[in-house]
Amino acid sequence: MSKLLIVGTVAFDAIETPFGKTDKILGGAATFIGLAASQFNIDTAAVSVVGGDFPQEYLDLLSKKNINISGIEIIKEGKTFFWSGRYHNDMNTRDTLVTELNTLANFNPVVPENYSNAQVVMLGNLHPLVQTSVLNQMTTKPKLVILDTMNFWMDCALDDLLNIIKRIDVITINDEEARQLTGEYSLVVAARKIHKMGPKYVVIKKGEHGALLFHNDSMFYAPALPLEEVFDPTGAGDTFAGGFAGYLAKTQDYSFENMKNAVIYGSTLASFCVEKFGTERMQKLSQDDVAYRLKEFEQLTQFNIELSQKNTV
Amino acid sequence: MSKLLIVGTVAFDAIETPFGKTDKILGGAATFIGLAASQFNIDTAAVSVVGGDFPQEYLDLLSKKNINISGIEIIKEGKTFFWSGRYHNDMNTRDTLVTELNTLANFNPVVPENYSNAQVVMLGNLHPLVQTSVLNQMTTKPKLVILDTMNFWMDCALDDLLNIIKRIDVITINDEEARQLTGEYSLVVAARKIHKMGPKYVVIKKGEHGALLFHNDSMFYAPALPLEEVFDPTGAGDTFAGGFAGYLAKTQDYSFENMKNAVIYGSTLASFCVEKFGTERMQKLSQDDVAYRLKEFEQLTQFNIELSQKNTV
Repeated sequence: MSKLLIVGTVAFDAIETPFGKTDKILGGAATFIGLAASQFNIDTAAVSVVGGDFPQEYLDLLSKKNINISGIEIIKEGKTFFWSGRYHNDMNTRDTLVTELNTLANFNPVVPENYSNAQVVMLGNLHPLVQTSVLNQMTTKPKLVILDTMNFWMDCALDDLLNIIKRIDVITINDEEARQLTGEYSLVVAARKIHKMGPKYVVIKKGEHGALLFHNDSMFYAPALPLEEVFDPTGAGDTFAGGFAGYLAKTQDYSFENMKNAVIYGSTLASFCVEKFGTERMQKLSQDDVAYRLKEFEQLTQFNIELSQKNTV
Repeated sequence: MSKLLIVGTVAFDAIETPFGKTDKILGGAATFIGLAASQFNIDTAAVSVVGGDFPQEYLDLLSKKNINISGIEIIKEGKTFFWSGRYHNDMNTRDTLVTELNTLANFNPVVPENYSNAQVVMLGNLHPLVQTSVLNQMTTKPKLVILDTMNFWMDCALDDLLNIIKRIDVITINDEEARQLTGEYSLVVAARKIHKMGPKYVVIKKGEHGALLFHNDSMFYAPALPLEEVFDPTGAGDTFAGGFAGYLAKTQDYSFENMKNAVIYGSTLASFCVEKFGTERMQKLSQDDVAYRLKEFEQLTQFNIELSQKNTV
């Protein structure tokens, strides 16, 4: 069975959207990535840190989803990372209200020994030096290293970020961040510049407009499923990454063609994530739900161009 | 052979983009629609009006593309509709610099007798009463009526617009206009509301993010081809509509499944339109160019989900 190692935050989120607000609920990149990857029956472990205030029931929840939590350090006297944000009416933009790093401020990740040979490593959005430390602890060269990051690290730790980007296979990044990282407006040109920084595969996330996968001169474009209502976008990008990484770890096929499927799985899982606050929808997701929505994605995007070529030009 | 009747502007455009600017060049909705539809070897006619200043060579150009111009009235003492605009650096927004209606102000469209039985009618963006007049002149009920419109008519001729919308089969509209027309942010909800206004099929154009086709509870999402450089977006929406209408007129299959192909053809042709100023690229487009890019669209969007389902959930 393939192993997937995840590093990322395990956190408290408090969220306000036009539809309502939450108290402190379960959040964090590693949480969303892990819940998405748990769909694939692979051997998944999360590396993170929480404080003594983190409820045992949340840890139990991750364990029940077959996410190994031996790499989640609990600092009894510390507090868990807390983020609070308010989404605007368009649900595409948000204001951060509170960021309390707490135990995350001095996070020193330790990869559990029996995961230092994981085939797939998913470096969730964190300080690039933390991501680097995890990669340095791998005793066997992973088959695939995926990195997610954000504009914050481009602003305040660009050199560290560029150093780790050199060493990875896939970067997932949103459109505005790709533009910031490269100074290019065209995503095609931006992806080409990012290729030159190291990653052979570049995934550009465009939120409600879907996701693009670039590899050399090849492109793949998976739309997001148009939804009646986006209830809470928090975690959608991490859920996408978790679906992408989990699918590749499961299939152990790291070709561009198979990455197309991984992008579709990521988009499918992300479409569930936004239906409820926080991790609520992902906790209750069944394999039938996923199979049904994959069919919807197929109907949404697939066409029969053979027919059309015969009939016309 | 199927007949396609187009009504729309035939005009002069002057365009400024970050890449350069043009003098008065050939433009107009009917021009772009006609050039796109000319790919399909159908019997196409354009209904429009121009002034005595309109060069014979432009009319000859349309004729050479097998667009019947007997419905293009020439008002010798009048001037041709003129639009001038400047695109911003993102190429998604623009300022209108000049709009001179000229002969268009009193445009009284006359459908050529031998096109009043056209199977497909494409009502290009114009005053809704002009669109209505064309539809009223049809002596045989068309198999398919497609309407394109814009926010300007929602602001100043909403009742007329709603009256013609009741009578059509397909509306093509951009995302912001769909939101304005319905007061709904979600495009899924907006499309449902537009269905209730009349059209069984709703196409929402999202520019660089592609186009959505809605029919009852079914959806189809065609991405736009990501381009290194968008040189001039003028006419892309009309080119999309022309490809969509032309393909349906050619195949005479007005099913939802076939409309998916029509959306792909529309997107494919629009991806050429933006590569040069005005109609320049569309004038020189070969069937090989189109066939090659259709293959690119296939690679961009198609995946093998059967494989992925076997391997995972």
